[in-house]
Amino acid sequence: MTTAPDTRFRRLREKGSKDFQLACDIIDEAKVCHVGFSVEEQPYVLPMAMARDGDHLLLHGSIASRLMKNLDSGLRCCVTITHIDGLVLARSAFNSSMHYRSVMIFGVAESVTAFDQKERGLNLLTDHLLPGRRADIRPSSRKEINATMLLSLPLETFTVKVGKAPPDDPAKDLESRAWAGVVPLQTKAGKPVPAPDLAEGTAIPPYVRKLR
Amino acid sequence: MTTAPDTRFRRLREKGSKDFQLACDIIDEAKVCHVGFSVEEQPYVLPMAMARDGDHLLLHGSIASRLMKNLDSGLRCCVTITHIDGLVLARSAFNSSMHYRSVMIFGVAESVTAFDQKERGLNLLTDHLLPGRRADIRPSSRKEINATMLLSLPLETFTVKVGKAPPDDPAKDLESRAWAGVVPLQTKAGKPVPAPDLAEGTAIPPYVRKLR
Repeated sequence: MTTAPDTRFRRLREKGSKDFQLACDIIDEAKVCHVGFSVEEQPYVLPMAMARDGDHLLLHGSIASRLMKNLDSGLRCCVTITHIDGLVLARSAFNSSMHYRSVMIFGVAESVTAFDQKERGLNLLTDHLLPGRRADIRPSSRKEINATMLLSLPLETFTVKVGKAPPDDPAKDLESRAWAGVVPLQTKAGKPVPAPDLAEGTAIPPYVRKLR
Repeated sequence: MTTAPDTRFRRLREKGSKDFQLACDIIDEAKVCHVGFSVEEQPYVLPMAMARDGDHLLLHGSIASRLMKNLDSGLRCCVTITHIDGLVLARSAFNSSMHYRSVMIFGVAESVTAFDQKERGLNLLTDHLLPGRRADIRPSSRKEINATMLLSLPLETFTVKVGKAPPDDPAKDLESRAWAGVVPLQTKAGKPVPAPDLAEGTAIPPYVRKLR
């Protein structure tokens, strides 16, 4: 028996939202998602690159991959994207938490088979992971595109959760001498490392440089 | 019907490993994991804080949480921890990838009910998320510990995947003038933001300061 996903917020309701634009912002800032599905009652959760195409989430992988075949078989999946934005240090462990933004998307992914749409979707993925990259490299060959599966998951059934409040300690804890507050966390790009076989004098392009 | 999880590596075998120490290192560096399970054939993937206690993974949450109740009901779960360490920019989109380290743990979580063990596990969680924090704040109260569920998942059935190679382009692509290499990515802590109700003059402790 298959039922609709239960997306009601029972707890921490104030952190829940079904706001589409917020979901898009969280997705657009992410490079990976965690894709969950079950095969014969065994759940699997796998990290995958992703991109957004309007109101769909795009995933890709080799046509030979078991993961892609599973996702293309009509299985229900849940795709979760999470940003950890900070550690919330309250005066007690109990009230400590994190700043985060997460989206959970429920649905069935469908394979994009029309060549032009697939090519377009794969190009979106390339530019999502590194804006500006697509125009700087050769177009993908027909063979490469044919060897890649592109899956599209509608952004229809989803939930958004955001935690961004400062620590909230009960009055009796305020006499604590412990420091309380938020330590922000952020993903940062380091110094680009050229490929060992990079032709001498090849400059780091602006769209890579500006990641730092 | 329930089957054992399929942890064989069919593809990218060179990236697969079952090395326990490597799994521990990946876990110890993470603040969150993604926990997947299915209820009535609907998969869910949720971000959760975690810590390692020897050869077990610890998860915690409110005793009132549906998630915790589900995980405590004997459901099979898959817990995945992923670090994205860099963007691998090859001369083609097809050969581009990421540097990453991930662990997938399969099993059934069990509730830790003995008070002393639970207290110890929760203390490990606090110090995992921020080493040094536990000693700086008041002990958790009996009421707080009783309101928290602690789950323990054995690190028995797991797989590790690591991608850390430079871009690997076919010879014909080496004449490309596009820059190729790796852009390292890392999570960094920003400047701590004091709680609005923090007593004036409360110094940022060394264990917070050194996160930067």
